[in-house]
Amino acid sequence: MELSLAELAERTGTEVRGNTAKRIAAIAAIEHAAAAEISFVRDRQYARFLDSSAAGALILPPELAQRYQGDCLVSPNPYLTYAKVAVLLNPPRRPDAGIHPGAVIAPDVVLGEAVSIGPHVSVGAGCRIGDRVVLEAGCTLARDCELGEDSWLHARVALGEGTRIGRRVTIHSGAVLGADGFGFVPEPAGWYKIPQIGIVWVDDDAEIGANTTIDRAALGETRIGRGVKLDNLIHIAHNVQLGDHTVIAACTGIAGSAKIGAWCQISGMVSIAGHLNIADRVTITATSFVINSINESGVYSSGTTVDEHGLWRRNAVRFRQLDQLARRVQALEKQLNTEQNKQGM
Amino acid sequence: MELSLAELAERTGTEVRGNTAKRIAAIAAIEHAAAAEISFVRDRQYARFLDSSAAGALILPPELAQRYQGDCLVSPNPYLTYAKVAVLLNPPRRPDAGIHPGAVIAPDVVLGEAVSIGPHVSVGAGCRIGDRVVLEAGCTLARDCELGEDSWLHARVALGEGTRIGRRVTIHSGAVLGADGFGFVPEPAGWYKIPQIGIVWVDDDAEIGANTTIDRAALGETRIGRGVKLDNLIHIAHNVQLGDHTVIAACTGIAGSAKIGAWCQISGMVSIAGHLNIADRVTITATSFVINSINESGVYSSGTTVDEHGLWRRNAVRFRQLDQLARRVQALEKQLNTEQNKQGM
Amino acid sequence: MELSLAELAERTGTEVRGNTAKRIAAIAAIEHAAAAEISFVRDRQYARFLDSSAAGALILPPELAQRYQGDCLVSPNPYLTYAKVAVLLNPPRRPDAGIHPGAVIAPDVVLGEAVSIGPHVSVGAGCRIGDRVVLEAGCTLARDCELGEDSWLHARVALGEGTRIGRRVTIHSGAVLGADGFGFVPEPAGWYKIPQIGIVWVDDDAEIGANTTIDRAALGETRIGRGVKLDNLIHIAHNVQLGDHTVIAACTGIAGSAKIGAWCQISGMVSIAGHLNIADRVTITATSFVINSINESGVYSSGTTVDEHGLWRRNAVRFRQLDQLARRVQALEKQLNTEQNKQGM
Repeated sequence: MELSLAELAERTGTEVRGNTAKRIAAIAAIEHAAAAEISFVRDRQYARFLDSSAAGALILPPELAQRYQGDCLVSPNPYLTYAKVAVLLNPPRRPDAGIHPGAVIAPDVVLGEAVSIGPHVSVGAGCRIGDRVVLEAGCTLARDCELGEDSWLHARVALGEGTRIGRRVTIHSGAVLGADGFGFVPEPAGWYKIPQIGIVWVDDDAEIGANTTIDRAALGETRIGRGVKLDNLIHIAHNVQLGDHTVIAACTGIAGSAKIGAWCQISGMVSIAGHLNIADRVTITATSFVINSINESGVYSSGTTVDEHGLWRRNAVRFRQLDQLARRVQALEKQLNTEQNKQGM
Repeated sequence: MELSLAELAERTGTEVRGNTAKRIAAIAAIEHAAAAEISFVRDRQYARFLDSSAAGALILPPELAQRYQGDCLVSPNPYLTYAKVAVLLNPPRRPDAGIHPGAVIAPDVVLGEAVSIGPHVSVGAGCRIGDRVVLEAGCTLARDCELGEDSWLHARVALGEGTRIGRRVTIHSGAVLGADGFGFVPEPAGWYKIPQIGIVWVDDDAEIGANTTIDRAALGETRIGRGVKLDNLIHIAHNVQLGDHTVIAACTGIAGSAKIGAWCQISGMVSIAGHLNIADRVTITATSFVINSINESGVYSSGTTVDEHGLWRRNAVRFRQLDQLARRVQALEKQLNTEQNKQGM
Repeated sequence: MELSLAELAERTGTEVRGNTAKRIAAIAAIEHAAAAEISFVRDRQYARFLDSSAAGALILPPELAQRYQGDCLVSPNPYLTYAKVAVLLNPPRRPDAGIHPGAVIAPDVVLGEAVSIGPHVSVGAGCRIGDRVVLEAGCTLARDCELGEDSWLHARVALGEGTRIGRRVTIHSGAVLGADGFGFVPEPAGWYKIPQIGIVWVDDDAEIGANTTIDRAALGETRIGRGVKLDNLIHIAHNVQLGDHTVIAACTGIAGSAKIGAWCQISGMVSIAGHLNIADRVTITATSFVINSINESGVYSSGTTVDEHGLWRRNAVRFRQLDQLARRVQALEKQLNTEQNKQGM
């Protein structure tokens, strides 16, 4: 795919400064970009690259475009424009429509038009597959799953019974949606399993990362809102509700029945306890541990960051005596006050 | 499946108060339950729902049953009775017995009666599969695995060489048992791999979550005790021993050769170092880090919990000066004592 | 496989003390070893086993060999010698060369000599598979992947488009290499996806653990250096660079574009933020959180370790008041100084 700067500008709603006919074949990082390639500068922090770049064109914010001599697209949001140009130059290669003869599809499955089903896929009884859905090699759909139009499951995705996927949803390899939630009641002889009879429901335009797991609800549904983006190796427990457009980075775990608002940004390796609420537009930084509800939008954090090991060890030992230290400070304050009172100060 | 209250009471060892003939078709959450549905109230905390619920029947502890006008099952443990009723109304749908023609099974595999083997399954040489075992689509068993009666592997489970699974074990999709443990010796040219020649042994009635990994032992066995329940995305390293009926929540990692007792409850995102012992009936709360043995039953914790970001940042900076702060307090104490001594107090 | 002590000594570059003709059939742990088995003692800490062991032979450092009466191999590095003996006695069983008829291989794939491709494998268009490569059951290779000689993918590994694997690389079951990196730009209507058009490149002699995920680069490559060893359930984000011979333990996550040096040792459940540099030969202990570059070799740590729950809770509450506590100490210091000045001290 090769496009002129004029075509790129038109299709991204930006303006060309310079040679509108210049042909662009690819996106590249600004340090590596060559004459037929376009790159971008997000803000002044990277302005030092402007003069040295060999890129055929740049995507620049207005203030940087002014002082740039070469060809450029001027955009109020160069990062977004870069993403749009990258899509134009690298349109996703959907596999051809068709069903591989090695796929195993139950007789009553309802298939939409132009679906693409790869080798070693299995689709259980009662499933409904929307138009243009892609199921790559090795996907397994248990009975009664439903997939909306244009959704795309990469290789080896597993959907449990009754999983419901919206339209234009992308699921990466190894993700497991709809395994049993983790619920047991103790008895003297061992743990008695609580049947998990609800489902997972993923709304339109969501994206689920590689090897992420989303458990089916005990009753009702575990719900992933519209436009939610989940990174890799995330655990979403049974009956969790994720609000629309919330994004979560890798290795985070959310316990059962937690209810997360819309447009939240949850970073990596975060732990969120069960049965709590998090308001809309809450940001949680990496490695945080949330055990109570968060009712106000804002940025929240916990954890500690690395130090040289010997220093850390001394501090970590003191942490284990922190309550005692606070009491000693209190005693000192009291002692000093008493003394001052005695001295009539 | 539809049962009368009398049948449910008989099969769960509880008593009916009210209309014993009432037909119940399903379980539902108390806020959503309708006339043919049963719900439960665990304790007084949820007693407010008693009057407003539209449920056809409730499962109640004796003290709440007294003040309830509708039909109910009276149980000393409503949560356990709920689980049992849920099983009665939703009996697990085992796939039909039979071997899919697309499964690839080595000629010397010993198959029990009434096994169910799905499409795209492969079973290596020397495996022994017990009666009524279910292998869902895409499972891969390397050579010499052994599965006890009534065990059930959901789609896409992978078992490494020699893995030994007991009876009535459930393994969820994407779990990998029996991959090599992580053991290397440094040499100047790089890390020399220590062959991992032991096995994984999972005892009866255990349940293993989606995408969880349990590594084979370097020598001997990694052992998952009877009735152990593991959630999703857990890592169990080589030669770990998990005592009977221990439960572990998602995202927890246990390093090599750790020995965990029976009936422990380990929460999510916990890290347990290698080569240590944890006694029976130890509870470890979420995000904890265990680096030494725990010899006494009890509840153990570490970590910090979220605050507003600015406040957290100020506290986290202070954590890195904590040893210094403690020394300053010590100096103050000394100074104040000296002073008091001088003043003859 | 059975070898004499003389043969083992010759092939591991060690010396026999005692009966050079003694036949050894297996490796065992020192407490369990029998007459035809060999075991090892790493250092004086385990010297107490010397007298009681029933092992046919031991691998010992010189200082322990002196006081041992039985047959032994004398080695300056008994652990390394043990690993080498274990390989000699347990040579890895490579599957026979050949392509299973149920594998689906695109017509233009270039296959080396003596490759072994299992059932239910799919290999996309444009892939190049080196000599003696093993693809176990259920592996899926998207288009344009490249695998060097002697690499071995265990069951159910998924490689995304363009993934490039070196020679003698081992990848364990469930690992996903080359899924899309996690990159989105916010728009009022939702998150706009940044196309991920780079690749994953794993250099020679690396080993990747079960269910680990390594994302493809946004542009360019995510690079796993030569001889790198990754444990299970690790997340490596897009554009990360891992230096040669770095080892990482399970459950660790590394965010986008982080650049880690060579010969680093990163423990389990560690979080490393994006866009930072870590020097060569840096050790990071378990559960640490790295948010800034580390420019000096050394050992680095963060986190806190478990205490009895009540004590932890009191300390954790104090942590949230730590800045305030430090200010109180400062006030006390000031007050005491003022007083001393007043008193003319």
